[in-house]
Amino acid sequence: MNYKIIFYNIGRILLVEAALLILPAIVSIIYADGVLASYAVTIAALAITGLLTTKKKPADRSIYAKEGYVIVALTWILMSLFGALPFYLSGGIPNFIDAFFETVSGFTTTGSSILNNIEGLPKSLLFWRSFTNWIGGMGILVFVIAVMPKTEKTSMHVMRAEVPGPTVGKLVSKLGASARILYGIYFGLTALTAIFLLAGGMPLFDSLFNAFATAGTGGFSILNNSIEGYNSLYVEMVIAVFLVLFGINFNLYYLLIIRQFKQALRSEELRTYLGLIAGSVLIIAASLMATNYSAGFSFRHAFFQVASILTTAGFSSTNFGTWPIIAQLTLLFLMFVGGCAGSTGGGIKVSRLMLLVKSGKRDIKKAINPRSIETVKVDRQTVEEPVVKSVSVFFATYVIVIAISSILIALDGRDVTTTISSVVACVGNIGPGLNAVGPAGNFADFSILSKIVLSFDMLAGRLELIPMLMIFTPYAWSRKYN
Amino acid sequence: MNYKIIFYNIGRILLVEAALLILPAIVSIIYADGVLASYAVTIAALAITGLLTTKKKPADRSIYAKEGYVIVALTWILMSLFGALPFYLSGGIPNFIDAFFETVSGFTTTGSSILNNIEGLPKSLLFWRSFTNWIGGMGILVFVIAVMPKTEKTSMHVMRAEVPGPTVGKLVSKLGASARILYGIYFGLTALTAIFLLAGGMPLFDSLFNAFATAGTGGFSILNNSIEGYNSLYVEMVIAVFLVLFGINFNLYYLLIIRQFKQALRSEELRTYLGLIAGSVLIIAASLMATNYSAGFSFRHAFFQVASILTTAGFSSTNFGTWPIIAQLTLLFLMFVGGCAGSTGGGIKVSRLMLLVKSGKRDIKKAINPRSIETVKVDRQTVEEPVVKSVSVFFATYVIVIAISSILIALDGRDVTTTISSVVACVGNIGPGLNAVGPAGNFADFSILSKIVLSFDMLAGRLELIPMLMIFTPYAWSRKYN
Repeated sequence: MNYKIIFYNIGRILLVEAALLILPAIVSIIYADGVLASYAVTIAALAITGLLTTKKKPADRSIYAKEGYVIVALTWILMSLFGALPFYLSGGIPNFIDAFFETVSGFTTTGSSILNNIEGLPKSLLFWRSFTNWIGGMGILVFVIAVMPKTEKTSMHVMRAEVPGPTVGKLVSKLGASARILYGIYFGLTALTAIFLLAGGMPLFDSLFNAFATAGTGGFSILNNSIEGYNSLYVEMVIAVFLVLFGINFNLYYLLIIRQFKQALRSEELRTYLGLIAGSVLIIAASLMATNYSAGFSFRHAFFQVASILTTAGFSSTNFGTWPIIAQLTLLFLMFVGGCAGSTGGGIKVSRLMLLVKSGKRDIKKAINPRSIETVKVDRQTVEEPVVKSVSVFFATYVIVIAISSILIALDGRDVTTTISSVVACVGNIGPGLNAVGPAGNFADFSILSKIVLSFDMLAGRLELIPMLMIFTPYAWSRKYN
Repeated sequence: MNYKIIFYNIGRILLVEAALLILPAIVSIIYADGVLASYAVTIAALAITGLLTTKKKPADRSIYAKEGYVIVALTWILMSLFGALPFYLSGGIPNFIDAFFETVSGFTTTGSSILNNIEGLPKSLLFWRSFTNWIGGMGILVFVIAVMPKTEKTSMHVMRAEVPGPTVGKLVSKLGASARILYGIYFGLTALTAIFLLAGGMPLFDSLFNAFATAGTGGFSILNNSIEGYNSLYVEMVIAVFLVLFGINFNLYYLLIIRQFKQALRSEELRTYLGLIAGSVLIIAASLMATNYSAGFSFRHAFFQVASILTTAGFSSTNFGTWPIIAQLTLLFLMFVGGCAGSTGGGIKVSRLMLLVKSGKRDIKKAINPRSIETVKVDRQTVEEPVVKSVSVFFATYVIVIAISSILIALDGRDVTTTISSVVACVGNIGPGLNAVGPAGNFADFSILSKIVLSFDMLAGRLELIPMLMIFTPYAWSRKYN
């Protein structure tokens, strides 16, 4: 393990975080909300750590897969530890574990909150909180689009085939051309979201904050009642539509830019994603109408919640905890699905589930005729068998992580639905779960242990499991696997 | 598709069912419980159907994988339809769907019941009900040990490697030598269970009934309170220990008989299975003691419930619905695990989960060093990659079946925990779930649709998914896949 290059690269990213913290500091000055000192201290801490670790360029600059994963995992953990400082030092969130949980939730674009009174936070902390959602969404685009295709060759095959991403080394030192284009799209779509919200009469800062949380599909809202607080059909529709857009594989936008319209629209993942949205909206709206809600109410909130949960944002437009069980269960299963691969959405990803269903069908066909040669095809191309295997193992690992975490969370003695849905919501980077952690509740009442486990889950889910699981195995630190 | 051979073979098995029904008919005569006529009608119906379909031996006697699966799926469905007749015709269970559900639950060794008052059933129906558990356990041994190794080469590799089973053709016409030995073990262990229960002072019929339900790991009890009704530590320990024995891969007993002691004890699946039992008992007992139960009570019921749920019997010694959430959740996850491959237990099977965890670890190692060659090993032998893939796809399919079924069951509008746990309990062939379908409840209040879905789930889980899923796909009936 090349520790020097690991420290060096993490140091560089911490310096970027220091720079990013200047923005909330400016907000703090504008609103004179009295928490400026906490930014100063945090920026100083980040700058010192960053400068010390990047003082000397390591002679050996080789980064292999292992170093790449370790850098990614440690970066997200350290960014969250430092990012929690403004909340903690300012007294906005008096408990450090709570502040850490909230920051992890932000950077991982989960949106689960321990805050009972969001509106009570100083304005600049609200800005920083929403901004972590946006930074996280950007970070995951770097990770998924730039790092994954090279290092985890097998599981994100759809993107790998389409995007020539930069190598890990390039990623950290300078961003590749395609990554820069993807950032352009991310910026552009975020700006569009904010403009549409502004056009509907939403105040500038609210528009910006909500655009941040929408872009990252993070779902941090600045109102205690989330989007319900605006009580506006227009706002809900703008946010829902942009969520759906941010949940689409960014490579498709890239294809649109390079004018490969046909290839973009032929994407099976896109069609499955849109089909899932349509199907879920129908099921939920029907179940709502069957319980005497109006058609207008039913379709409005069904669409908003499906968009919000499937893209793993987790905004709420109403308390779906009171909806019929079939509607709640549909939302619970959408939490597992998540957005498309290569989007800011979390979850297992539409492409993986698509592949699993196809593999299941293939295995049935194989059983019918063992000598036939059946391959799994996506977008008319045969998927290599190691990819099918790797995706299936990913799914199993995902479920096992949920099971083990749930057992630990169960120590808190909360009901089964709350326990399991809190874990599903964190691993999938959704935000709210059901019952006590539903849209009307929050994560404040969990024990310290549970908050740490859930923070781990958010990071594990966000980084596609391998990096976070790896640093907790002996393999990553043993010479044997070097 | 060779329909003639399919009808012919199913007909032969229906004749066997007619013969088996003579036993409850005799019980009915002995106890003069007034339902003899319903057996007579059922036996006549089975005999006529059986004789008509077996009148002429088909000239073309070839059975390929597809025919094998279709025979298995249709046999279990038809046996359940006919087997439900005594309950229905006698008025013991007035609704036919209820009677069908109860019979499917019996043959699949699930043990979920729609009966509110079990003790109110005529004695011979109680006998038939328990006997279906035993027949089902036997049937699954034929299926898993004789059919699977030849047709589904990939997923049950552990057994395939060890047991030279008869071919599908042989299975239906005459049983192979090794299958006969396995039956001997099943008979012997059942007899031992009954003798131990008798020795503890349990009445003859109760001993027999409970031995049937224990052997099949079915869990049908003849008391409304299940095993709790005997209120005897001795009875609980006898049943728990024998359940653990019936949950072990029967090939290990075969190995013991042919004096391959070392190979039997070296089995990783056996060790994992025993380790899971020990670990779960510790977690549950600790959680019970932490809530002020005595150590004696805690270990007694923790061991009984872990044995009962892990082996998927589903007997209860106490209402675990009132236990701490961590204990309930541990039991819920054990429902997914199930017994060892090649046992009468249901669930995903210990060997599959073992393989999934190993594959997960392997994928982490591969990520650390992409060029290393890492294989998954079980019992010191490398598992072929198609097996790893097939097991992972099985797992994904299992979870997807649970998700889709839960959405359908959710139409009943019962709480999330009841809804999901009822499906998990049925697909895993366990019996009770949590909340309203917990040990103190039953499945009576579900809608007709839910009962049909849950019956499908019980059959799908019992037959390792493929046969039941296959007959509902066009592939099985299309010429293209012949």
